[in-house]
Amino acid sequence: MLFAVQMDIDLPVEMDPAVKADTLAREKAYSQELQQAGEWVHIWRCVGRYSNLSIFDVADNDRLHEILWNLPLFPYMTIEVTPLARHPSDIALLD
Amino acid sequence: MLFAVQMDIDLPVEMDPAVKADTLAREKAYSQELQQAGEWVHIWRCVGRYSNLSIFDVADNDRLHEILWNLPLFPYMTIEVTPLARHPSDIALLD
Amino acid sequence: MLFAVQMDIDLPVEMDPAVKADTLAREKAYSQELQQAGEWVHIWRCVGRYSNLSIFDVADNDRLHEILWNLPLFPYMTIEVTPLARHPSDIALLD
Amino acid sequence: MLFAVQMDIDLPVEMDPAVKADTLAREKAYSQELQQAGEWVHIWRCVGRYSNLSIFDVADNDRLHEILWNLPLFPYMTIEVTPLARHPSDIALLD
Amino acid sequence: MLFAVQMDIDLPVEMDPAVKADTLAREKAYSQELQQAGEWVHIWRCVGRYSNLSIFDVADNDRLHEILWNLPLFPYMTIEVTPLARHPSDIALLD
Amino acid sequence: MLFAVQMDIDLPVEMDPAVKADTLAREKAYSQELQQAGEWVHIWRCVGRYSNLSIFDVADNDRLHEILWNLPLFPYMTIEVTPLARHPSDIALLD
Amino acid sequence: MLFAVQMDIDLPVEMDPAVKADTLAREKAYSQELQQAGEWVHIWRCVGRYSNLSIFDVADNDRLHEILWNLPLFPYMTIEVTPLARHPSDIALLD
Amino acid sequence: MLFAVQMDIDLPVEMDPAVKADTLAREKAYSQELQQAGEWVHIWRCVGRYSNLSIFDVADNDRLHEILWNLPLFPYMTIEVTPLARHPSDIALLD
Amino acid sequence: MLFAVQMDIDLPVEMDPAVKADTLAREKAYSQELQQAGEWVHIWRCVGRYSNLSIFDVADNDRLHEILWNLPLFPYMTIEVTPLARHPSDIALLD
Amino acid sequence: MLFAVQMDIDLPVEMDPAVKADTLAREKAYSQELQQAGEWVHIWRCVGRYSNLSIFDVADNDRLHEILWNLPLFPYMTIEVTPLARHPSDIALLD
Repeated sequence: MLFAVQMDIDLPVEMDPAVKADTLAREKAYSQELQQAGEWVHIWRCVGRYSNLSIFDVADNDRLHEILWNLPLFPYMTIEVTPLARHPSDIALLD
Repeated sequence: MLFAVQMDIDLPVEMDPAVKADTLAREKAYSQELQQAGEWVHIWRCVGRYSNLSIFDVADNDRLHEILWNLPLFPYMTIEVTPLARHPSDIALLD
Repeated sequence: MLFAVQMDIDLPVEMDPAVKADTLAREKAYSQELQQAGEWVHIWRCVGRYSNLSIFDVADNDRLHEILWNLPLFPYMTIEVTPLARHPSDIALLD
Repeated sequence: MLFAVQMDIDLPVEMDPAVKADTLAREKAYSQELQQAGEWVHIWRCVGRYSNLSIFDVADNDRLHEILWNLPLFPYMTIEVTPLARHPSDIALLD
Repeated sequence: MLFAVQMDIDLPVEMDPAVKADTLAREKAYSQELQQAGEWVHIWRCVGRYSNLSIFDVADNDRLHEILWNLPLFPYMTIEVTPLARHPSDIALLD
Repeated sequence: MLFAVQMDIDLPVEMDPAVKADTLAREKAYSQELQQAGEWVHIWRCVGRYSNLSIFDVADNDRLHEILWNLPLFPYMTIEVTPLARHPSDIALLD
Repeated sequence: MLFAVQMDIDLPVEMDPAVKADTLAREKAYSQELQQAGEWVHIWRCVGRYSNLSIFDVADNDRLHEILWNLPLFPYMTIEVTPLARHPSDIALLD
Repeated sequence: MLFAVQMDIDLPVEMDPAVKADTLAREKAYSQELQQAGEWVHIWRCVGRYSNLSIFDVADNDRLHEILWNLPLFPYMTIEVTPLARHPSDIALLD
Repeated sequence: MLFAVQMDIDLPVEMDPAVKADTLAREKAYSQELQQAGEWVHIWRCVGRYSNLSIFDVADNDRLHEILWNLPLFPYMTIEVTPLARHPSDIALLD
Repeated sequence: MLFAVQMDIDLPVEMDPAVKADTLAREKAYSQELQQAGEWVHIWRCVGRYSNLSIFDVADNDRLHEILWNLPLFPYMTIEVTPLARHPSDIALLD
C-alpha cells in the first residue's frame, strides 16, 4: 500500500556536532535498510529545503507509523502523510 | 531532471457530459503517451480527492511547462510544482 | 485499517430540488449500506456546518478511494483523509 | 454529548528524560482511567505525527474543559475541539 | 451550555429581491424567537462585515446544531462554533 | 462601545512557579476589578485551550488598548480585537 | 476615534456596464461626501490591486458600521477593520 | 525603482473564444510595448501555472499602479507587488 | 511616495530590562526624528497588539528600506510593506 | 535554466557578534563568486524585510540544490523555489 510522505527537518543551529553527526548517520542507515527491504520505495530531496519527499510501500497504517515514529530525526521533523491509490491512467494497468 | 507535481482537478458540476467524457479521454491518452515516452514517470491518485501526485523526468523547466500547459484538464487544475534533487541517502547512490 | 475522513459539503443554493432530493436519498442509502457492511464505522455531524466526521475501516487505500469516489455527493465535497494507527494508550491493548 | 478532539503534542527535544518518562506515564494512566470510565470513547494515533484524534462523551462543555486542562501533557499540546451531533444517516437512528 | 458562534453571510449579488427580503424577514423572526426563548443569548454585528458574533445557551450539541441548521440564511453562511466553559476569573463565581 | 477580544495565552513551560503564580494572581485581580467596574462585561474560557473570549464595553479605542496593554499576561498573549455594533435583529432594539 | 479599513473590491467581469458606471459614480460621491465631512480621513489605492486602505475618524463603532454597510460597493467588498489608538511615539503628543 | 510583481491569471473556462483571443493579443502587445520602453524589465512564466513573475523599473508607485491597472487581463488577475531595493551583496555595487 | 508599513514587535519576555529600556528609547527618538523630518507621516498603535500601522513618504524604495533596516527594534519586528498610490476618489484631487 | 528563489533570513538576536560577522562575510563572498560565475543572475533586497529575491541560472535541479544547501546562512533561512520558463510575451523571443 502506497503513501507519499513529506518530511521537513528543522535541526537546532546550536545542536552538538557529535550528536548531530551520530543522528544523521543513524538516520541514513535506517533509511537505507528500509529501502533495501522495499518498504521505502523512493526518497527525493526537495530543492533548496531541508526536506524530502518519499514514497512508502507498507502493509498497513500501523506499519507506516512504526517506521516514521522510529526515524532518528523524528523529533526534529514535521511530517505530512498522503495515502495513495492506483490512478486509472497509470499505464501499469494496461498490462 | 525530476519534479513532483501535485494536480488538483475541479470540474464544474454542470459540465456537459459529452465535453467531459471527451476531455477525460484526451487527458488519459495524453498522460499515457507521456508515460510511455518516459517523461511522466509516476502517477498516483490521492485518496478521497480528485487529485494526483505525479513525478516527471524532463529535460528542463521549459519542457515541463509545455507538458503541463497542454494537459486537456489544465484549465480545471490547480498545479503545484516541486523541483527534486538526488537525496544523499538514496541507495541508488551506493552503486 | 482505520481512516478519519472529514467531508465538507457545498451544495449550490440554486440546485434543482428534485435532483437535490434524489442525490441526498442516494447518499443516505449508500452510507447506510456501507455502515451495515462494517466499512463505514462512525458518522457524526459537525455542529453548525454541512460537514461530517467519519471513521472508515477498510482493507486498503484503494478500497477507501473507491468508496469515497462513488459518494453521490462527491462532486460537492471537500474531503480530508487522515490515516489512523493504534494508540499505545488505547485500553483495547490491555486485553 | 460527543466531541472530536485533535491533540498535537510538541515535546522539547532537550526535555529531561526522567521528567518526560514520568509525564508520559501519568498521561497514559490518566487517559486509560477516563477510557475505563466511558468519557474518553476513542483514541487513535494520527500516522506519522505525535498527535491523536479522540472522541469524548461528556456531560457538558465544562466537564470537557476540565478533562483536557488536566492532561499531564496539556502544556505541550495544541488542541482543537469539534462539537459533534447525531448524523441523520447514522444507522443507529434506524432502530 | 454556552457556545460562541461566528456567522459570516455571503448573499449572491444577483439574488431575487423578493426572495432576499423574505429570507431576511424569516431570519430576523427566527432569531428573535430564539432570543425571547433565552437560547440565543447575544447577537452582535461585526463592524464592516456581513457577519455576527452570537452566544447561545442550549441544552446540548444536538440542539445547537438543530438551531443553526434551520437558520433561513444557513445555505449562505460560513459558521464557526466555539464551545465555552466557565472562566475561573469570572466574578459570577465569587458569589 | 463593545469589542470582542480573543486572548490566547502561551506560558513558557519552564516559567518560574513563583513568578507564574504571582502573575496569574495579578491577572485575576486585574480582570475582576474591570469586571466589577463594568468595562470587562463577559469572560468565557474556550474549551480545551488556554484562551478566553471576552466582551469589553469601553469609552473608546484608546481605553481598550490601555486595558489590554496592562494585562499582567499581555507579554504572553496573542490578542485579536473585533469591534462590535448593534445588530438589527437584537431584541433589545424592540423596546 | 480612528480605524484603519482595508477594502478589497471584486466586481464580476460580466457586470452590466451601466450598472457598474452608476455604482462607481455613487461610490465616489459617497466617499467624497464623507471625506468633506471629516469622517473619511484618508484613502489610498494599494498598488496593483482593486483595493484601498482608508483611515476613518468616527464617533463610535456603530457609526463606522453604518458608513461601511452603506457603501455602494459594499456587496462586492471584503473589508478588514483595525481599531487604532494613539501611539506613544507620535510627535503630536509632544505638544 | 524596482518592483517584483507576481500575476496569477484565472480566465473563466467558458470565456468567449473571440473575446479571449482579442484580450490575450492586447495583453501581449501592451506588455511588449512596456518591455521595449524599459519599464517592464523581465517577464518569466511560472512553470505549470497560468502565472508570471515580472520585474518593473518605474518612476514611482503611481506609475506602477497605472501600468498594472491598465493590463487587459487585470480583471482576471490576482497581483502581488513586492518593492525591491539594492542588495548589499549585488556585484553591481562593486564597480 | 507613500507606503503603508505594518510593524509587529515581539520582544523576548526575558529581555534584559536595561537593554530593553535603551532600545525602546532609541526607537522612540529615531521615530520622532523621522516624523519631524516628514518621512514618517503617521504612526498609530493597533489596539490590543504590540504593533503599529505607519505611513511613510519617502524618495524611493531604497530610502524606505534604509529607514526600516535601521530601526532599533528591527531585529524583533515582522514588517509588511504596501506601496500606495493616489486614489481617484481622494478629494485632494478635486483642487 | 532559470529559478526564482525567495530567501527569508532569521538570525537569532543573541547570535555571537564574531560568528555573525564571519557568517555574513562568507555569505557575501559566496554570493558574489556565484554572481561572477553567472549562476546567480540577480539579487534584490525585499524592502523592510531580512529577505532577498534572487534569480538563478543553473544546469539543473541538483546544481541549484547544491548552491542553496551550501549557503553560509542556509541554517537560518526559509527558502522557496519557483521554476521559471520562457514567457511567450518576452520580447527576447522576437529576435
